[in-house]
Order: sequence, then C-alpha cells, then structure tokens
Amino acid sequence: MTESGPIFLPKGFKFSSATVGIKASGKPDLALILADRPTSAAALFTKNFVTAAPVEVGRGSLVKSHGLVRAVIVNSGNANCATGRAGMRACQKVCSDLAQFLNIKPVEVFPSSTGIIGVPLPVEKISAQLKSLLEKSGASPDHFRQFASAVLTTDTRLKLASIPLRNGKAAVTGVAKGSGMIHPQLATMLVYLLTDAIATPAELRRSLRNACAETFNTISIDGDTSTNDTVLLLASGASGVRMRSVQKEFEKALRGVCQSLAEQIVADGEGVQHVIHLRIEQAKDRAEALRVARAISHSLLVKTAWAGADPNWGRILAAVGRSGVRVNPNRVTIFIGAQKVCSASTACVFDERAAHEELSKAESRVIVQLGRGRARLDFLTTDLTTDYVRINADYST
Amino acid sequence: MTESGPIFLPKGFKFSSATVGIKASGKPDLALILADRPTSAAALFTKNFVTAAPVEVGRGSLVKSHGLVRAVIVNSGNANCATGRAGMRACQKVCSDLAQFLNIKPVEVFPSSTGIIGVPLPVEKISAQLKSLLEKSGASPDHFRQFASAVLTTDTRLKLASIPLRNGKAAVTGVAKGSGMIHPQLATMLVYLLTDAIATPAELRRSLRNACAETFNTISIDGDTSTNDTVLLLASGASGVRMRSVQKEFEKALRGVCQSLAEQIVADGEGVQHVIHLRIEQAKDRAEALRVARAISHSLLVKTAWAGADPNWGRILAAVGRSGVRVNPNRVTIFIGAQKVCSASTACVFDERAAHEELSKAESRVIVQLGRGRARLDFLTTDLTTDYVRINADYST
Repeated sequence: MTESGPIFLPKGFKFSSATVGIKASGKPDLALILADRPTSAAALFTKNFVTAAPVEVGRGSLVKSHGLVRAVIVNSGNANCATGRAGMRACQKVCSDLAQFLNIKPVEVFPSSTGIIGVPLPVEKISAQLKSLLEKSGASPDHFRQFASAVLTTDTRLKLASIPLRNGKAAVTGVAKGSGMIHPQLATMLVYLLTDAIATPAELRRSLRNACAETFNTISIDGDTSTNDTVLLLASGASGVRMRSVQKEFEKALRGVCQSLAEQIVADGEGVQHVIHLRIEQAKDRAEALRVARAISHSLLVKTAWAGADPNWGRILAAVGRSGVRVNPNRVTIFIGAQKVCSASTACVFDERAAHEELSKAESRVIVQLGRGRARLDFLTTDLTTDYVRINADYST
Repeated sequence: MTESGPIFLPKGFKFSSATVGIKASGKPDLALILADRPTSAAALFTKNFVTAAPVEVGRGSLVKSHGLVRAVIVNSGNANCATGRAGMRACQKVCSDLAQFLNIKPVEVFPSSTGIIGVPLPVEKISAQLKSLLEKSGASPDHFRQFASAVLTTDTRLKLASIPLRNGKAAVTGVAKGSGMIHPQLATMLVYLLTDAIATPAELRRSLRNACAETFNTISIDGDTSTNDTVLLLASGASGVRMRSVQKEFEKALRGVCQSLAEQIVADGEGVQHVIHLRIEQAKDRAEALRVARAISHSLLVKTAWAGADPNWGRILAAVGRSGVRVNPNRVTIFIGAQKVCSASTACVFDERAAHEELSKAESRVIVQLGRGRARLDFLTTDLTTDYVRINADYST
C-alpha cells in the first residue's frame, strides 16, 4: 500500500515526463497523464484566497467540460502564482497547445504548477516540448514512476500508493508531491488519484470529498496553506467494473491510498525527524477535535519540544488551552506512548526516560483526552527542527 | 523611554528580591512590590483556558479586595501551573504568609509565577524567605532593578520603561518579563505598571484595557499564549496628582510605557535576529488587519524567510490569502522597506539586493496593503531562527 508496496496501474492511462529547464537543478520538470478517452474527473483545490493560475484555469475547465478530462499537464519549479493576467494566459496557452496536438478541447486539459511564487512561467520552454512529451508517453510502471518523479520539488522521495479492487480487476492508485507549506485545508499538495472503475463525475466528487476530509485534511507540517494545492481524481472506466457495484470497497481503497500518501508527505516533511500520531479523544465533535489538534500541531513550543524528544506535556496542555475550545482543565488527560503523563491537568508519576525514548522514535504517539464528549480524531504532524529553518531560510529569491 | 532612558520611580512603592533556590541557575527568583498603603489596582490575564494557580488566585483576590492591592509577590522558575489543588493551596499559602507579616488581608496580596509548567511550587522555600524579603525592601532605583531582574526567566535583559507626568510631579513606570510563548492574546507576559497618580480601580481598568489593546496585543514571537500572562497596573496616589486631571497625558504615558515594554520583549525574543515592524494598511477594520498580521507573523515559511533576510514576498502573499480575510488578490500590494515588491499580487521590478539589505537590519519594515478599506494596524514580530529551535528543543523536562 505504500511506496515500497506493489503498484497496480489502472488501465486507460499513459504517462510521460520531460526536462524543459524550469528547475535550475536540471531535474525533470514537466509531467503528463494522458487518458485513452475522456475520463470522469473530480477535484478539490486550496482554500487560500490567493490562488495560482492553474487552480483558476483547472477549476473553470472542469465546469465547462462537465467533469471530463483527457490530459493532465503538470510543471514543477514554478508555481505560476502571483503572475497576474500574463500567468493566466501562459497557463491557457499550455492547455490549448496540448489540446491542439491531441485534437481535443483546451478545457479537457487539466493544468497544475508547483514551485516558486511570483516568477513568470516560461511557457515557450514548455510548449516546445509538448510534442515529444506525447511521443514518449507509455503505460508501463516505469512511465508512471517518471511522472511521479517530475512533479516533485523539495521532496526527497517518490510518493505512491496503490490498492487493487475486485481481486485486481480494477485499482485505485495515487501520486503525490509535497513536503512544505503543508497545512490541513482541503487538498494541501498536488495529488493525482487514478482508477479504472466506471464512475460519473458526481460520484467521484462525493467519494473524493469524504476521503480527503479524513486524510489530507488531518495532517500538518508547518501550518502554511499553499496557493496551488490540488487533488484530482480520474476514473477511466477501462476495467469495466462499476464503482457503484463496489462502492464500499472503492471508498475504502480511495481512503487507504489517500491516507498512505498523506503519511508519506508528512514523513518527507522538510527537516522532519519525528512524525507524531496525535489522537484527540473525548471531544464534543470532530470540529473541535480538529481545532485542538491544529493548535497543538501549530505550536512552535510543542513542535520544538518534539524535536528534542522532550516529554514536556505542559506545552501541549497550554496549546489545548489556547485552542479556543472551552476545555475544563480538570478533565484533560495526556498520554505519551502508553504512559499517562498528565491527568486533570496535573502531572502524573511516569517514567520520563521511557517517554523520552518514545518521542525519540521516528514515529510516536500522543493522545489528548478532552473530557467533553465521545468524538475522536487522528491527526498526523511533525516536529520542527533546525533543518526546517535552514531549508526555508536560505536566501533564494 | 526605553531601558537605557532615565527611570522615574513613582512614589509610594518599595521593591525587593531574593534567591530562594527555585531556579537551578542560582539566580534571584523571588520578587516583591510593596505599596506604602492599599493602592488601586487593575489587571488583565491570559485568555488561555488553562490558567496557572496565581492567575486564578490573583483574579479572585482583586474582586474580593474591590481592586485594592498592598503587595505583589512574584516567583520565577516555576509557573505553578498544572499543579492542581496543591498548586492553589501553595499559592494561597504564600499570600497568607506574606499578609501575616504585613498585618493585612491575604486578598490584598497579588501573586504571580513564571517558569516551568507541571512542577509543584516549593512553597516552603518561598515562605522561609518572606521576612528577609520584607526587611531588605527599599524605594531606590537599585531596589527597583533588583525586582526587575528577579522576575526574568529566559530573558537576556531587563525590560523597563518610564515616562514622567506633569513635568515629573508623577510618573508611569513599567517592568516586564517575557521572551518566548509570546502571542497577542491580551496580556502575554508578566508586566507590572506603577503610577503615583490618584485613580480608582475602575479608571485604571479602562485605561489599561485601551493601552494593552494597542501594544501588547499587537506583538507575536511564536504564537503561543502562556498560561500565566498577567498585566497589573497599580496607582499609589502618592504624587497627589489626580489621573482625571491629566487624563490624556496619563493615557499617552501608559501607552508609551506599554509600547516600549512590548518592543523590548520582542527584541529579546528567543533566538530573534530580526524584528519586523509589520504594518497592515487598507483593511476594512482593525479586526481584519489584526487577523492578517497574525497569519503573516505565525507563518513558519514567512518567519524563516525573514531569518534568511529573504525578500520572498510570495510567502507573505500566501499567508495573507489563508488568513481568512476575503482579500481580492488583484488589490494586494506589499512593500519591503520603501520598495514596492508586489502589486496586484504580481511581482514588481525592484532592487532585490536593497530588499535583502533592508531585511538584514536588526529592525526592518514590511507593509501590506489590502485594498479593502482605510483601517491600519502596526504589528511587531520576529524571524524564526535555528537558535529559537535549539533553545526550545533542549530536553529539559
């Protein structure tokens, strides 16, 4: 189910990548998904009010095409955000140039960009490579991995997940990029989810919204929401398996793929040394559990304590108290690993050494019980290390 | 007006400090303000729902004493927070022991604590020193500085500010501590403001609320709100000058002292290399300006860019976009120093070297215009450095 697991490639898609010179590193920076025929699509976008050109174009195209997509074109190294009207025209030109080669409508091309903000998109470099990008496309696992590689930026590894349906008759498979500016507001990265089940755009939208709410919306690295975040789900129908006939299995697989990609994104977070599985229990409802989880996971004092594997539960408690949720401190309990470290907001007798060791692991568990109700939420977050600061403080503009 | 300026000590107060062994460092950790007679008082406390015992006790005592305070007792090195009923009893015992020596009511003693959370307050150590603390008290500038020194924790310098009233007939003078867990929610640190003007508790409350809203509530180092934050204003009346007769001068002085202390706290923030004077302009109202300022000043990506003196306005723009304020990106303008770097959410032609140099200074200026209205807000914040992470990641529990 994770990157190391087997990949079940949904039928009906081809993939390709190219190096067009947007990235200074000379790594691949253009990527394509090509559907054999128009496929049903659904997408979720960033909630940031400042959005990149491809987010605007993609959202509009999905409406105009009635949720049908034939090709996905992604460039990395440039976000095409804060680029004004010229940025919109650049994005539209990439789509229409690709559409011309494919003899389809420009609104059937779905665009994405990721990278630096505020720099004009070098549209000529992209357009010059579209023909060879199409010619090189193929349906092999290698082609798929090349696509997954070309969408990366500061990521240090591929993010893939795959789950078969109906004993392999169909599959749900996903690719993600993202390792900074990761915050739980809708889709918080670029994610492409593919299936060869048969589904309508409306069916896909419903399933996608549910899957994202429980996975990508419950992770946080640095609390920053990008201007380009996009999750796209495509259903080619090439397997002949109707989504409705495997509804529960499909939704479970979609959630599983999203959860795996979310975990891979967090684990590859910039400078991350420790991943924290944070569970909020005894909340009145999911919304307030999420609010508490976010307050904890955005607290610099908590995150730096985690960097030092410091079982400083006082900082966690203080973050709970300022979350805006009207907790009664006398009912709050905190666990680090299996140990209760704080009960009724006062210290418990616990083995500090063991708590320190738990937090020293690559992945560890923290549970906060609010004593207010029965809602529960699992949230994935990280520590904040000097490496994160170094990666993001380099004078790069 | 700042620490280096002259201190005008309000009449009617004595000060003292002692080393009782709460701090492992062996530095002074107990501090006293003693008023010659019961003085009018007003206080603001943290908005955190998890509050330390002294916050609860102090709040209650002010009500019971009808806003009269005779003594302020502060310990540093232990927050007496998350210490349960024993913590409440410990705090009450310190107050009643001190009251007994002074032959006053326990509710006339105002307590504060700052330091580590979740560790029992060593109340016997404190009580054993109260008598000598009283005996050593005095009204000299030296005694005042000893008080200011004993309330510090990770602070690297004293934080004092003083403004005379009526050509020196009276004065407003303040002491603060705080350098981490600094977030703009009401009072966000320990601050003691003294005046020898004559005022009722109700008059003080009104003035204090206004002064704090414009000063301590517009700063942020790390977005964390402490469980112990307290701002206390005492008026001895010993100058014979009625506050009402110098109302405007008094309020200006109080705001000036608070602003100076707020600036000193930010400049002494943990690991801070760059202080940013962030101005939000063209907001619809002050509330939305504050919301945008906080989103920017809490963004790890913005704060780390500032650590690298990186004029990366794209990160600022992205933070504006996720603030929750419904900005129209086409109307947003950003300045770094005197240079316009982004207009209508697109890059301007600007001198990058000069912008980098502006952000390399100890204090620099960033202006964000929202294009929505006429409200303006000045906000003080900092960069996020590897030193901040190091200071807070040390395994210390």
